[in-house]
Amino acid sequence: MIFGRVVGDVVATRKHPSHEDIKLLSVQPLDRRGKGRGAPLVAVDVLDAGAGDMVLLTLDGWAAMTAVGRVPSPIDSAVIAVIDSVEWDEPEARD
Amino acid sequence: MIFGRVVGDVVATRKHPSHEDIKLLSVQPLDRRGKGRGAPLVAVDVLDAGAGDMVLLTLDGWAAMTAVGRVPSPIDSAVIAVIDSVEWDEPEARD
Amino acid sequence: MIFGRVVGDVVATRKHPSHEDIKLLSVQPLDRRGKGRGAPLVAVDVLDAGAGDMVLLTLDGWAAMTAVGRVPSPIDSAVIAVIDSVEWDEPEARD
Amino acid sequence: MIFGRVVGDVVATRKHPSHEDIKLLSVQPLDRRGKGRGAPLVAVDVLDAGAGDMVLLTLDGWAAMTAVGRVPSPIDSAVIAVIDSVEWDEPEARD
Amino acid sequence: MIFGRVVGDVVATRKHPSHEDIKLLSVQPLDRRGKGRGAPLVAVDVLDAGAGDMVLLTLDGWAAMTAVGRVPSPIDSAVIAVIDSVEWDEPEARD
Repeated sequence: MIFGRVVGDVVATRKHPSHEDIKLLSVQPLDRRGKGRGAPLVAVDVLDAGAGDMVLLTLDGWAAMTAVGRVPSPIDSAVIAVIDSVEWDEPEARD
Repeated sequence: MIFGRVVGDVVATRKHPSHEDIKLLSVQPLDRRGKGRGAPLVAVDVLDAGAGDMVLLTLDGWAAMTAVGRVPSPIDSAVIAVIDSVEWDEPEARD
Repeated sequence: MIFGRVVGDVVATRKHPSHEDIKLLSVQPLDRRGKGRGAPLVAVDVLDAGAGDMVLLTLDGWAAMTAVGRVPSPIDSAVIAVIDSVEWDEPEARD
Repeated sequence: MIFGRVVGDVVATRKHPSHEDIKLLSVQPLDRRGKGRGAPLVAVDVLDAGAGDMVLLTLDGWAAMTAVGRVPSPIDSAVIAVIDSVEWDEPEARD
Repeated sequence: MIFGRVVGDVVATRKHPSHEDIKLLSVQPLDRRGKGRGAPLVAVDVLDAGAGDMVLLTLDGWAAMTAVGRVPSPIDSAVIAVIDSVEWDEPEARD
């Protein structure tokens, strides 16, 4: 799983039926200091995470489908926790 | 899932039988400002996306096979939504 | 799926039994201008692709096993099409 | 599997039920000299690894679910060994 | 599958039971000239590969479990061939 920060909602009218009635979030992956880095991902969410929340994402298809109770479906990423606290950064690490 | 922009069609005469009668699109992944970045991917499409459309791609095999109703088959990426709008970029993020 | 160009054959005498009697190709992934970039991958091939051919690769285990009709087996990449033509590069994209 | 070093615990009150009663660790992936590099990952742990331990991580969904005996569940990374020793770095390699 | 060079053994006393009695190798991924690049991976091996051997690695969970006859287990990478020869590098490619 990776750390991400919720950026906002993704709106799509034309989509696969299994994506009806489920919230799609744009999530920014975080680097080892908790800052955003790289391209945003899109994840389904049933934990009602909101913009700015730090979340835990699974990037495995089966794991993500299980998280939202839709197996099988065209889902490969899901919010599985809203993070309260984390020990961050390892002094010796580099980007 | 990731954000991408449809570049165009991919034409292949010699291919696996499961790829007959299904549209193959070249899709450019997008960075956190919505600009193209990196190598294009190839995805199957049953939502009739066209060149220039911003789309949502799944990159998981089972999820992609499910998206087009061909399980199992040699498919690992599919267009699963055409994006209407998205909140883009996080001010503090970097590439 | 990704775009690649066939570099040549890979020869291995000591290998898993499921890899007997199947062609192994070294394939160079391509960037958004159709030029080789990064480390080569190894894929199984039943479409008789040859050196210099532009091909479509699946990088998902189940999808690749299905492509060559050997499920399950220790295979995670397969040539699934030989490309005739593709619309290449998006003017605004960067590496 | 990849090498990582345990950074610390991840605390999340609001999470998927399958993550109840299981330890979540933040783990820093290691480069070829054993130094931290890149963004931390989050893995489940049933081997009681502690901060500073060098560990082996699986990043495959099914493998990780199996490691903790919860199949299926929204888990895609798990600590599967605490490393005692490893031959490190290859003189000719580069980053 | 990717190319790698065996660096040496990985020793772990505290580990998942499915990893008992199976050899764990540290393997350096190779770039398009056959030189080591990036972080080492850890793979299971039943082909008795030794330090310095060039090998073929699968990085898919199911494929790797199948390679060593342990399905399911917390294994996501396995040595599936020892390479005899390979056509290397494509003149026009870049890193």
